[in-house]
Amino acid sequence: MVETPLKRKDMLGLRGMERAEIQTILDTAELMREVSRRKVKKVPTLRGRTVVTLFFENSTRTKTSFELAAKRLSADTLSFNVATSSVAKGESLMDTARTIYAMSPDAVVVRHGCTGAPHLLSRAFPWSVLNAGDGVNEHPSQALLDMLTMRDRFGSLDGLKVAIVGDIAHSRVARSNIFGLTTMGASVMVAGPGTMCKADLASLPVERAHSIDEVLPKADVLMMLRIQRERLGPAVLPSVREYATFYGLDLERVQRARPEVIVMHPGPINRGVEIAADVADGDRSVILDQVTNGIAVRMALLFLLLGRGEDAPTA
Amino acid sequence: MVETPLKRKDMLGLRGMERAEIQTILDTAELMREVSRRKVKKVPTLRGRTVVTLFFENSTRTKTSFELAAKRLSADTLSFNVATSSVAKGESLMDTARTIYAMSPDAVVVRHGCTGAPHLLSRAFPWSVLNAGDGVNEHPSQALLDMLTMRDRFGSLDGLKVAIVGDIAHSRVARSNIFGLTTMGASVMVAGPGTMCKADLASLPVERAHSIDEVLPKADVLMMLRIQRERLGPAVLPSVREYATFYGLDLERVQRARPEVIVMHPGPINRGVEIAADVADGDRSVILDQVTNGIAVRMALLFLLLGRGEDAPTA
Amino acid sequence: MVETPLKRKDMLGLRGMERAEIQTILDTAELMREVSRRKVKKVPTLRGRTVVTLFFENSTRTKTSFELAAKRLSADTLSFNVATSSVAKGESLMDTARTIYAMSPDAVVVRHGCTGAPHLLSRAFPWSVLNAGDGVNEHPSQALLDMLTMRDRFGSLDGLKVAIVGDIAHSRVARSNIFGLTTMGASVMVAGPGTMCKADLASLPVERAHSIDEVLPKADVLMMLRIQRERLGPAVLPSVREYATFYGLDLERVQRARPEVIVMHPGPINRGVEIAADVADGDRSVILDQVTNGIAVRMALLFLLLGRGEDAPTA
Repeated sequence: MVETPLKRKDMLGLRGMERAEIQTILDTAELMREVSRRKVKKVPTLRGRTVVTLFFENSTRTKTSFELAAKRLSADTLSFNVATSSVAKGESLMDTARTIYAMSPDAVVVRHGCTGAPHLLSRAFPWSVLNAGDGVNEHPSQALLDMLTMRDRFGSLDGLKVAIVGDIAHSRVARSNIFGLTTMGASVMVAGPGTMCKADLASLPVERAHSIDEVLPKADVLMMLRIQRERLGPAVLPSVREYATFYGLDLERVQRARPEVIVMHPGPINRGVEIAADVADGDRSVILDQVTNGIAVRMALLFLLLGRGEDAPTA
Repeated sequence: MVETPLKRKDMLGLRGMERAEIQTILDTAELMREVSRRKVKKVPTLRGRTVVTLFFENSTRTKTSFELAAKRLSADTLSFNVATSSVAKGESLMDTARTIYAMSPDAVVVRHGCTGAPHLLSRAFPWSVLNAGDGVNEHPSQALLDMLTMRDRFGSLDGLKVAIVGDIAHSRVARSNIFGLTTMGASVMVAGPGTMCKADLASLPVERAHSIDEVLPKADVLMMLRIQRERLGPAVLPSVREYATFYGLDLERVQRARPEVIVMHPGPINRGVEIAADVADGDRSVILDQVTNGIAVRMALLFLLLGRGEDAPTA
Repeated sequence: MVETPLKRKDMLGLRGMERAEIQTILDTAELMREVSRRKVKKVPTLRGRTVVTLFFENSTRTKTSFELAAKRLSADTLSFNVATSSVAKGESLMDTARTIYAMSPDAVVVRHGCTGAPHLLSRAFPWSVLNAGDGVNEHPSQALLDMLTMRDRFGSLDGLKVAIVGDIAHSRVARSNIFGLTTMGASVMVAGPGTMCKADLASLPVERAHSIDEVLPKADVLMMLRIQRERLGPAVLPSVREYATFYGLDLERVQRARPEVIVMHPGPINRGVEIAADVADGDRSVILDQVTNGIAVRMALLFLLLGRGEDAPTA
């Protein structure tokens, strides 16, 4: 049985989270990962609990990952379909939340375009809220799965040098990783086009590089961010081709990196833009390990937040 | 074990239903409500049964409520997606029904824009049909959850005075409530703009008021209907603002009502139109109790229609 | 316990499949059919396994049938929603597949507009791939359910004369049936407008008839294909009315067929086009038996591919 030091009912973000808490989540995720490797990929831990997914932005992979995590813990899942719901008829976030809460779910997994939406839901009700991405703020389960993937490869996060490359200013993945990694003793460098990096970088504990080439020889981890073509106007991004030239990770650049470097990407990837196809599929890539660890981390979060007093699965 | 006097395989409407049957449903729903309050919100009663939802009109909250009810009874649920199905290729209701029936479901929960669609499905096959709203005819599970919510507050429905305010002519919620409430000994007053009240009110056992202000001092229950802006043309509804002035329930009006009055709404609410925000969130509102009771009533219906011979959960 | 001679991890098509394998699938499907007739329509055989459905073309009935089949074997199902997924953002089939594979499913049920897509997924990973329709190539579970339905009526497929009428050239249903039926000793005649029959018929072991009237007196089975109005241009199909006249199955034509003839259709039907309403609903029609057998065949396939070493349900 895992003694849980998680002194919280929600997972809203990694900012301000204690080292011991993150450690517990990663350790629990390692146990959970074993479940998905079994023939019977299911433990009864959360039988009879209800987990609702409430996604105001589309994301099949994150939603699927949370749903599979819940099912493998035997919870019932319910996807609240925003597109066909009363939200489409103009209902407010809080009225939607009140209705869902009245249905007695144990946890709600929420993605919303506005920073702070999950925090609002958390303060309103005693349920557990799991932030699956809020505006440009945080995406904590993504950062936790990234950190588990790094720990798998390097044994520890302490002293690790992680370079994040791309649109830092608009990336909740980058922000959650910066908070989590620095808490765990890693150092973070960021590199990206100027217009993509302004933001509040000054206040974050990161080193700002001028180009991807500057970080290559130093980094243990190269984390490439997805270019959200649909989100950016022409002024921000002169051209996709130019982006690939200056910030894309191709094989030539990987060869200038440390031999033990690992290449990460939160997916879905734009082949030939932020990452070349042969790098994404190459032997330094751990992109699919990230997906596998995503389910493990989300199982750990659901277990730690909802399963207090339950036995963890044994390995 | 509940002795079920439900002498029917379907729940098509409350018109003509006997008092003892409604009583059984409400009593059973009270037992079922306990299940959703437990940590393990699940009983094995309907394990291995299949409940299909077939919604030709969007309604996330009603569909979700039925699905959660089925899951908490351990039934398998299957949502037949009309939008992507052969219905979109022009298949008729009956051909869709035949196909679903051939898949051996135990119950089908149907919402359809035409009055009588569920009755058609009921006559065609020996499965249980639950009407989740048909045209402007009935929406029985909504009325049953409304009645359970009133009974919770007042102990009995006998002698209760219920005012329904809004578009009575187009409201299946109003019609089912009128049938159910009068059977249970309550009296029903209706108030709404003339164009919204014509219909067959003359044949229904209701008292017609000329304004909301007329019903305020008499009613134990104020049930506000949702204005379906999308359904009504400009001729029917001069303006939303005017509607709010003449028929909206604001705090000033609540203060002229009986002190023990309760305020109900089937949701989703249009804040500031048929109901003011501070009334919807105020201490007379039981709107969220309605949502909670919705799951309990739907569990009761599924149990009573499908679970004959099974033990009910004990409180 | 069924001794499985299925020497494969996938069900990609019936071309090249051995007679003993098809026999095993049909025999197992008969056992599985009993499960859907029980009150508790569920066996624990695939508890804790994950079955993913990945449909790039809409098909509620096939997808629903596979999902119900998986649920009745107690597997967890997950529908990967292509429309809202990163596929819509331009992700390739293989990147989608890699992501899903990293989530540790046991089987993926795939429908895709391109011939060979399921084969690609099968070669890429050690999971079980079930082809739910690829381009104009194969739709094996449909042909197997068709064959089970014929065997139910005639006792054996050996020597049976099956006529397939319609757009042979574009029909994966026709192709899978041709492969399966001829392997099992049946003979196949095809009839359809010239433009709809060209294709590679020459290489297939079928007899080509010039009109539906030519096959009527010979056929034990009349299998009518669906006219895909949305797929065909005006050049291919002069008019739907003309099609009905020359190739539609009406009551008059049924009366010219053998008395024991059965009428089949993969659904959804176009009443009045390829089949008259009174024929679809008449006593020679086995269209709904096909739907029921669809679940049984898909349960058998999932069991035989995933459940090696598990006990089959007993009748």
